[in-house]
Amino acid sequence: MNKKSVPLGVVKRLPRYFRYLGDLLKNGVTRISSGELSERMQVTASQIRQDLNCFGGFGQQGYGYNVESLYTEIGVILGVEKHYKAVIIGIGNLGNAIANNINFEKRGVKLLGLFDVAPSTVGTVFNGLEVLHMDKLEEFCLANKPEIAILTLPKKEAPAVFLRLKELGLKGFWNFSNMELNSGDGITTENVHLGDSLMTLCFGIKSTEEEV
Amino acid sequence: MNKKSVPLGVVKRLPRYFRYLGDLLKNGVTRISSGELSERMQVTASQIRQDLNCFGGFGQQGYGYNVESLYTEIGVILGVEKHYKAVIIGIGNLGNAIANNINFEKRGVKLLGLFDVAPSTVGTVFNGLEVLHMDKLEEFCLANKPEIAILTLPKKEAPAVFLRLKELGLKGFWNFSNMELNSGDGITTENVHLGDSLMTLCFGIKSTEEEV
Repeated sequence: MNKKSVPLGVVKRLPRYFRYLGDLLKNGVTRISSGELSERMQVTASQIRQDLNCFGGFGQQGYGYNVESLYTEIGVILGVEKHYKAVIIGIGNLGNAIANNINFEKRGVKLLGLFDVAPSTVGTVFNGLEVLHMDKLEEFCLANKPEIAILTLPKKEAPAVFLRLKELGLKGFWNFSNMELNSGDGITTENVHLGDSLMTLCFGIKSTEEEV
Repeated sequence: MNKKSVPLGVVKRLPRYFRYLGDLLKNGVTRISSGELSERMQVTASQIRQDLNCFGGFGQQGYGYNVESLYTEIGVILGVEKHYKAVIIGIGNLGNAIANNINFEKRGVKLLGLFDVAPSTVGTVFNGLEVLHMDKLEEFCLANKPEIAILTLPKKEAPAVFLRLKELGLKGFWNFSNMELNSGDGITTENVHLGDSLMTLCFGIKSTEEEV
């Protein structure tokens, strides 16, 4: 299966299925119908069936889905078993929040390096990881071969660091720098623009006001 | 115009148009064709024309779009001129990062209050705003009437705070708590699950590897 065979809309919803199914598992739920999943996720049951059919379908008529196997299968599709290794570039408030709040392990990702340039930050320790100076980036990447870089550095620094990391063989960029970075040539980028989501919220409030 | 008349997919793309057009303006570009916009945004030109037609269309054949008026119009559609007021609940690393890194002003949003419960955080000042104790929430909201709450507090605290803020008349919730909060009854929620975006990235890397 390659990326082209799965519609982007479906891919975007899979992490959400993974999250919901993980919560169900934690609550001891072993099977669920597309109808129940639909109610919880506020997605239509037919959408759910259609989405999951993209991967061969896991449900059985009259039984529903086995939560654990569906959770595991979706995890495999999403790459959980690849155990990608990640570094964070930029340990300001956002880098810190991501290092501390994201459950990397659940997603199969191993966070193994933190980098910054500020003398007050380099040498400090978060979750057992010491923040290294950017001067150590080459040496570290050659030794540890991370695939993912999490870019929580200032916008103006992003392009040069992006190039440097691509040359070091990194393949995936989770990019919070607000500098749009392009995928292609074996590189995958996920550009996160938090401000866009704030605007979507404002649009929603405004629309609700206008409905009244 | 109300929310129902605009497809969700279009709404989700508008903040991106707003961001690109803002960058063009900053760089002194006064007009642009859907073709050029398409190239920069990696969206097809026909998609762009179709999206912008949802709002009556702003382009002129053979001339393209006037960047400034398109930027302003999309801003109005998104609610920039509503000047919504926001408070942040939870001034940990993430609340801090949002207070400092999001350009609220550009989006017409005024950040006017910060709240926490930790004795070490209450009373500290960020960007001229003093962090207030949650005990002051009612008094503050009655006096200042914010519409938006930014929830950067722990998951388990989210439901109770959500109820409390709804009773105080807040209408929009930008929710980073990882506790899914539902829209409806005049309430708009924008649930941000950063971990989902990490999984989308992992899927992209995996798919690229499999293409080789």
